Amino acid sequence: MQTISSSSSDALLVQLEATHIASGQVRTLSDARKQALLERLAAHVESATVTILEANRKDLDRMDPADPKYDRLLLDGSRLASLAQSIREVAALPDPSGAVLVERDLPNGLHLRKVSVPLGVVGVIYESRPNVTLDVTALCLRSGNAAVLRGGADAFETNTVLTQIIQTILEQEGLSRDCVTLLPTDRELIKTLLTATRFVDILIPRGSESLIRFVRENSLIPVIETGAGVCHTYVHAEANLDKASAIVVNAKVSRPSVCNALDTVLVDEGVAAGLLERLGPELQKWRVELFADPMSYALLVSMGYPHLQEARPEDYGREFLDYKCSVKVVRNLDEALEHIRQFSSRHSEAIVSEDAGICRRFLESVDAAAVYANASTRFTDGGVFGLGAEIGISTQKLHARGPFALEKLVTEKWIVEGNGQVRG
Amino acid sequence: MQTISSSSSDALLVQLEATHIASGQVRTLSDARKQALLERLAAHVESATVTILEANRKDLDRMDPADPKYDRLLLDGSRLASLAQSIREVAALPDPSGAVLVERDLPNGLHLRKVSVPLGVVGVIYESRPNVTLDVTALCLRSGNAAVLRGGADAFETNTVLTQIIQTILEQEGLSRDCVTLLPTDRELIKTLLTATRFVDILIPRGSESLIRFVRENSLIPVIETGAGVCHTYVHAEANLDKASAIVVNAKVSRPSVCNALDTVLVDEGVAAGLLERLGPELQKWRVELFADPMSYALLVSMGYPHLQEARPEDYGREFLDYKCSVKVVRNLDEALEHIRQFSSRHSEAIVSEDAGICRRFLESVDAAAVYANASTRFTDGGVFGLGAEIGISTQKLHARGPFALEKLVTEKWIVEGNGQVRG
Repeated sequence: MQTISSSSSDALLVQLEATHIASGQVRTLSDARKQALLERLAAHVESATVTILEANRKDLDRMDPADPKYDRLLLDGSRLASLAQSIREVAALPDPSGAVLVERDLPNGLHLRKVSVPLGVVGVIYESRPNVTLDVTALCLRSGNAAVLRGGADAFETNTVLTQIIQTILEQEGLSRDCVTLLPTDRELIKTLLTATRFVDILIPRGSESLIRFVRENSLIPVIETGAGVCHTYVHAEANLDKASAIVVNAKVSRPSVCNALDTVLVDEGVAAGLLERLGPELQKWRVELFADPMSYALLVSMGYPHLQEARPEDYGREFLDYKCSVKVVRNLDEALEHIRQFSSRHSEAIVSEDAGICRRFLESVDAAAVYANASTRFTDGGVFGLGAEIGISTQKLHARGPFALEKLVTEKWIVEGNGQVRG
Repeated sequence: MQTISSSSSDALLVQLEATHIASGQVRTLSDARKQALLERLAAHVESATVTILEANRKDLDRMDPADPKYDRLLLDGSRLASLAQSIREVAALPDPSGAVLVERDLPNGLHLRKVSVPLGVVGVIYESRPNVTLDVTALCLRSGNAAVLRGGADAFETNTVLTQIIQTILEQEGLSRDCVTLLPTDRELIKTLLTATRFVDILIPRGSESLIRFVRENSLIPVIETGAGVCHTYVHAEANLDKASAIVVNAKVSRPSVCNALDTVLVDEGVAAGLLERLGPELQKWRVELFADPMSYALLVSMGYPHLQEARPEDYGREFLDYKCSVKVVRNLDEALEHIRQFSSRHSEAIVSEDAGICRRFLESVDAAAVYANASTRFTDGGVFGLGAEIGISTQKLHARGPFALEKLVTEKWIVEGNGQVRG
């Protein structure tokens, strides 16, 4: 056992080094060649629809159709067409590499430039969605990066065929097939990947909370964490309550399963009754279950709101991902800010108020990737923000915060040109 | 024991949360107030010279003067004066927070801005140099961040007095003393710090390789790694050999103990003899020990170079930090690039050549924080690059690469202002 495992770990390192070497090829590709590569890839995905769906069928046949992962795994003609379209959209985005960020001449005659350059080798660890294979490949190649893909065992047949298509296109373009590598799904190999600091520059886990935690705890490679969203909307005493109600309802029910959906409503004492009177009938239509603090609980009982529970302490700071949310009455902005400081996951936070000074204080004071005045938190999205497809929403503060998209798949490099300068 | 340890761990978390709360105060300080705070701090450091040196004496008295750490720990009037001067220089640097990086109106009327904002709470783990206490405090406060300082036990008396001075100034300015916190040096508390993801936003280890490795392996908080420099200078067939010799000598001997010093000379076959003839007499003056591959070994033997060894495989990719370097003859640029890919720590890499096309290929292909044509790698430095004092040279690719200075002590925040927008 020992021998098999360490030999396959060695084989993995050989493969990762091959991708590291190949990353030198994509790093120096011209903008036009990177675009052409993606256009060809999109066309090949379309023309290989039958082959891809056959492979996908093999994966699906091993899964119980009642499993919630079944739909995530499923590809069909229309999903593939929209994947090809996404690849074309990435091709049309501007190349994030090659930008001159700083340029200056030093007194000693050295010419100094700081430029954006590809990261190198981007590793992505994901679960059952095979669309990630194409999405990530498109974003990585567009920005001059090689990619190491470690998908889930559920999608292995589909991912294998997709990777073959990608590698065929790479070879047709005179590049090494190692520019994009699909790794075996053996569990014991994950640790080898997470510690391969010489060959992989950045790791992005995509999937469940437990996957992300595992990668964060075990990786020696820098990780971009796209975490949970515990999102608050604070309705201030000077809010327009019709607007506030519409914003809260939208933030909760327009897509409860996503990270920018609302989890907790904070409301100033003086307007709590007015807000809940407007919210109640709307939330009731969606059978939204409310976890209420004593004051809002009393108000909701008096209105006869049917889906009601007393909030327990753990209902604050909880990401519901469902037609559920917690409610709390606060005395003022300061109490709302302190609640958010304690319970926010620093994803998306909103205030509703007609008082511009109060809004400004909220926007300045709240520490989150995205902060809103008088709008729904549901807008936190790479596409909406004008960045194109995103890999996820980063809730950490280094490198990328908020939508993590093509523009951030680069690092910096200082280029120094001289004519013999030495340091005194 | 268990009880004591867990209660002091709880006390540490209480302190870290206090700093997290206090970070809200520094986050929103105006540029002018942050400058004034640092000016006052510099003045107070000067006026408290006697007190600081007394505390420093207590630390020194516990250490063997022959210990190499003794000099790192030692403060005197002139070192303190230059520390106060550094604080004033940081005060004079531009505030990196508050820059509007993106601004646009969306079709639905939302007004979108991406702005630079303070990171929040910056944790620094360091060893015996007490100057770090003042340097880091100045950089953190200038950029609107709170700081958690975990210095070494050797410098505890000095660090305690320095922190008292900082906290006095904070209170005089109407701020919480918790904005800058010095942690106890108990070893078992390090793990509590490394996992306090809710209260500390970023960790920077400063010190030995083993400290940095420990932090990287155990931290759940994102780490900025300032790593080792294994730096190459490649002398190409078309190099001006006088320039090349001057550059190599400077990169090796001007300050061998630092990370941007040269470790390996790569030289094209055709100019190896010419280069070594020029280098030999210069390196001999400094008794530089050379670890040479067979071809350069033969040439150096024929020249009678006295401090010579045959290179073993581990002499490549080795950071010498001393008057030592390895030498290797290569066939051409491609072989040099592949050697650098394999052995570089991606810190600073140089080429010497009069062929502009060859230089361009090297600068584009080499993956390092700083790449040089016809200059010494010794220039990689925040001050030289125009960034002011640096916390270290980052050899990782996320967030900061190369000199990690004031400008990078910020993250981004998306601010979205609307008038009731909801998502369809």
